[in-house]
Amino acid sequence: MQALKSSLRNLTSTAHVRFSSTAASAPVSPRHLLSIGDLSSAELKYLIDKADSYRSLIKAESFTTAADSQPLTGHTIAMIFSKRSTRTRVSSEAAINYLGGHPMFLGKDDIQLGVNETLYDSGRVISSMTSCLVARVGPHSDIAGLAAASSVPVINALCDTYHPLQAIADLLTIKVAFGKTNGLRLAWVGDANNVLNDLALACAKSGISVSVATPKEYPVNEQVFSKVAEAAAESGAELKVCHEPTQAVAAADVIVTDTWVSMGQEAEKQLRLKQFAGFQVTAELGKAAKPDWKFMHCLPRKPEEVSDEIFYSDKSLVFDEAENRLYAMLAALEGFVVKRGKFSEE
Amino acid sequence: MQALKSSLRNLTSTAHVRFSSTAASAPVSPRHLLSIGDLSSAELKYLIDKADSYRSLIKAESFTTAADSQPLTGHTIAMIFSKRSTRTRVSSEAAINYLGGHPMFLGKDDIQLGVNETLYDSGRVISSMTSCLVARVGPHSDIAGLAAASSVPVINALCDTYHPLQAIADLLTIKVAFGKTNGLRLAWVGDANNVLNDLALACAKSGISVSVATPKEYPVNEQVFSKVAEAAAESGAELKVCHEPTQAVAAADVIVTDTWVSMGQEAEKQLRLKQFAGFQVTAELGKAAKPDWKFMHCLPRKPEEVSDEIFYSDKSLVFDEAENRLYAMLAALEGFVVKRGKFSEE
Amino acid sequence: MQALKSSLRNLTSTAHVRFSSTAASAPVSPRHLLSIGDLSSAELKYLIDKADSYRSLIKAESFTTAADSQPLTGHTIAMIFSKRSTRTRVSSEAAINYLGGHPMFLGKDDIQLGVNETLYDSGRVISSMTSCLVARVGPHSDIAGLAAASSVPVINALCDTYHPLQAIADLLTIKVAFGKTNGLRLAWVGDANNVLNDLALACAKSGISVSVATPKEYPVNEQVFSKVAEAAAESGAELKVCHEPTQAVAAADVIVTDTWVSMGQEAEKQLRLKQFAGFQVTAELGKAAKPDWKFMHCLPRKPEEVSDEIFYSDKSLVFDEAENRLYAMLAALEGFVVKRGKFSEE
Repeated sequence: MQALKSSLRNLTSTAHVRFSSTAASAPVSPRHLLSIGDLSSAELKYLIDKADSYRSLIKAESFTTAADSQPLTGHTIAMIFSKRSTRTRVSSEAAINYLGGHPMFLGKDDIQLGVNETLYDSGRVISSMTSCLVARVGPHSDIAGLAAASSVPVINALCDTYHPLQAIADLLTIKVAFGKTNGLRLAWVGDANNVLNDLALACAKSGISVSVATPKEYPVNEQVFSKVAEAAAESGAELKVCHEPTQAVAAADVIVTDTWVSMGQEAEKQLRLKQFAGFQVTAELGKAAKPDWKFMHCLPRKPEEVSDEIFYSDKSLVFDEAENRLYAMLAALEGFVVKRGKFSEE
Repeated sequence: MQALKSSLRNLTSTAHVRFSSTAASAPVSPRHLLSIGDLSSAELKYLIDKADSYRSLIKAESFTTAADSQPLTGHTIAMIFSKRSTRTRVSSEAAINYLGGHPMFLGKDDIQLGVNETLYDSGRVISSMTSCLVARVGPHSDIAGLAAASSVPVINALCDTYHPLQAIADLLTIKVAFGKTNGLRLAWVGDANNVLNDLALACAKSGISVSVATPKEYPVNEQVFSKVAEAAAESGAELKVCHEPTQAVAAADVIVTDTWVSMGQEAEKQLRLKQFAGFQVTAELGKAAKPDWKFMHCLPRKPEEVSDEIFYSDKSLVFDEAENRLYAMLAALEGFVVKRGKFSEE
Repeated sequence: MQALKSSLRNLTSTAHVRFSSTAASAPVSPRHLLSIGDLSSAELKYLIDKADSYRSLIKAESFTTAADSQPLTGHTIAMIFSKRSTRTRVSSEAAINYLGGHPMFLGKDDIQLGVNETLYDSGRVISSMTSCLVARVGPHSDIAGLAAASSVPVINALCDTYHPLQAIADLLTIKVAFGKTNGLRLAWVGDANNVLNDLALACAKSGISVSVATPKEYPVNEQVFSKVAEAAAESGAELKVCHEPTQAVAAADVIVTDTWVSMGQEAEKQLRLKQFAGFQVTAELGKAAKPDWKFMHCLPRKPEEVSDEIFYSDKSLVFDEAENRLYAMLAALEGFVVKRGKFSEE
């Protein structure tokens, strides 16, 4: 209780910090959040704890009181979304607004990166009139290109390789559900995708052992997983990669999956359903996990990935996980925009 | 004058009330506004009077002064619009902003209810990160489904069966034009649609007699009109339903119509134009009404429904009616979001 | 320095002025900004200087401090965009938000002027619920029609004939780069388009001589250029119109071009590329200009119009020019919305 109060006091005083617009700043490059790999373990912990503080504050107090300190007042934050994304859209707009900023949504009909002018020109121009770019793009090279051109912080709101905001939300979900992160075991049963990459990095950096099962047609990203292995070695966590769901979930505290057929993959849906046979998360599969195992999924969910019996049960953390996207974004905005990337308190 | 001052004072003090976010609330179901049928006569009167107070305040004072009290500061309100709707869009955004909130517009390219995940999942997730859902949908089942899933108030901004915000704006328009509502007679000449349903309910609850003429191919909704009859019996108002425009407008104070060919009905336009022959509101038709009859139409308007001679005359209240959508939305937000559905002062 | 301080003090005190909503106002017609031709030389100078003050303020101070005075708080400003326009979109949203207002973006999927109802009806209705219409349309008749119907100021954010906000930003760019405007020479090498029209008017009113070279297939707009000639005669500036790029750039301080193939002209791209042969701005072409000539382009830029060597060199003011759109919009909002069109301090 004392800890919570102190945490809230800390949160509040942080929110009152005045900061200068990046436009006015010296020619130092801003710091970007493109992947969990950009963060030290201490920085990741800071963001998870900060998200937790926002969660407590928003759940316990009125929005209005909190709104007395809105450090982004007057600031416009560009949300460049090449693809649709409900949770990312809603959590980002709500978080930006909560801090007083204006979320300017630019969808694929508003701007097409690299089509009407170079990515560099767009990044340079948009960043000159705003305080942060939140971008949800296709190829990772798009977000990296924006970051290279931008004079303000770029936050990756999903690309084909990483999804850091989801990973922060997921770690917060685990922390709240289990009261800790260190020493747990997370099993991923599904596609070897962008969500897995940053989640595995975040777990390894937080002392959570990771067991991954993907179909053999979809091996994990070697480059990313060598970093996961390094981080695991450092934190003392274990890392296992296999193609057998039952093997992956053994002794797991949390079982996680994601959609197998993402936007743009509808054409190959039948093939993928076949390749992912046996990967549905069910009560039966969960028998190999710890008795009180929990289920996570970043949504949107299709029934083939997880049975209704699990998805809508009290084992399921999915709706908390979605709500936690709001607190994760608040933490990211505070760390990268308000505090301009200097937020570790080691 | 004394009454107005007192009403303004009341408005101001109301606007200062601090309220907790629903996200932080106890697990009580929020109260929704899906139809005028959800309101008691006293509650409807409260909303009309509140809308009138906002009208006076905004017309008489600077926005800036009023903005000193913005109870929705820090709150994001989702506007889920499956269909285009200019007046609903503009009035909702302006009203939410006036109260300090952030209107997050989600059009059909941003979210498709029930397509990428269940309506329940979308409603639950979006409501967990926002303070209200304002939804403009097709089938009434969509708005009812959102309400069932949502942890925050849902305001129906138009579905195929109801249009409560238009009805509140219309009653305000009548109140301002005639100085009263009770004892008047309103004639509807046109389609048996969603706008008619809530308008007839609102009139019956307010002591306004209702005469409806629709083509025989388009009878009124029996279920709704049995409720209209009940409400009329209670308030002492009359209810007549027929298929003859001249009969409906007899002794009317107000003649109302709406478009005959809505979005999505363009294919059957020729047929409908034939079925609605004789339903155009003209000076000739108005001869059967009271001499100082007024014209209303919720817009957008096509010439076949009403002659230019009437539409742009001083009998026409259409532009006041459109502007009043702003004040109606302000009242709805105050009643259902700020006051959380407890606003009757009987 | 003393001048700057005084200018900032002036800016700040201006921003604190409270103003009444136009909706509440007497039936005086609002003043609109449709073209630079609507402005006296003194008014144009006021807007450029005001934009310069905002530039200094935003570059030197924190946004947060400045945001203490947000005269548009509670106001919604409609942005009606029939066509896509990144810089106009971003600069307008950021400027409106900076002053505390809510930018309500209405794209072509949200509203189609003149399609579902008359332009007059839309203009009258939208203006009744908002405090300003910022419109980016096709034909000039659309913006003129909106202005005729609107009860609030209309700001032209680009039509087929004028682009006043770009001209204000361009004059600010020149003022900052050269420390003055009067006595300079600007050469336009390219299409005879909307950007040229208002830029030539702005230069002539500011004492900047103008030399224009367009392909003979694209002569300048005679009506506009007779006004340019008048303004030039008054300010003592020169005006030359020809079809030879080298002739136009002689002794120029600034060389300006714009895209040759605008949105909607893709079909005739090959023909236009041929007609514009020799019109690319290159180091070679610049040899006829003054040694320290600068390059401007309102973006987006295609390589055929200007070589990379110039575009990304330190001769190029293009990114300052884009950023200055923000300050130009701030000045326009202050002049036409906050000060309601009465801003000359002659």
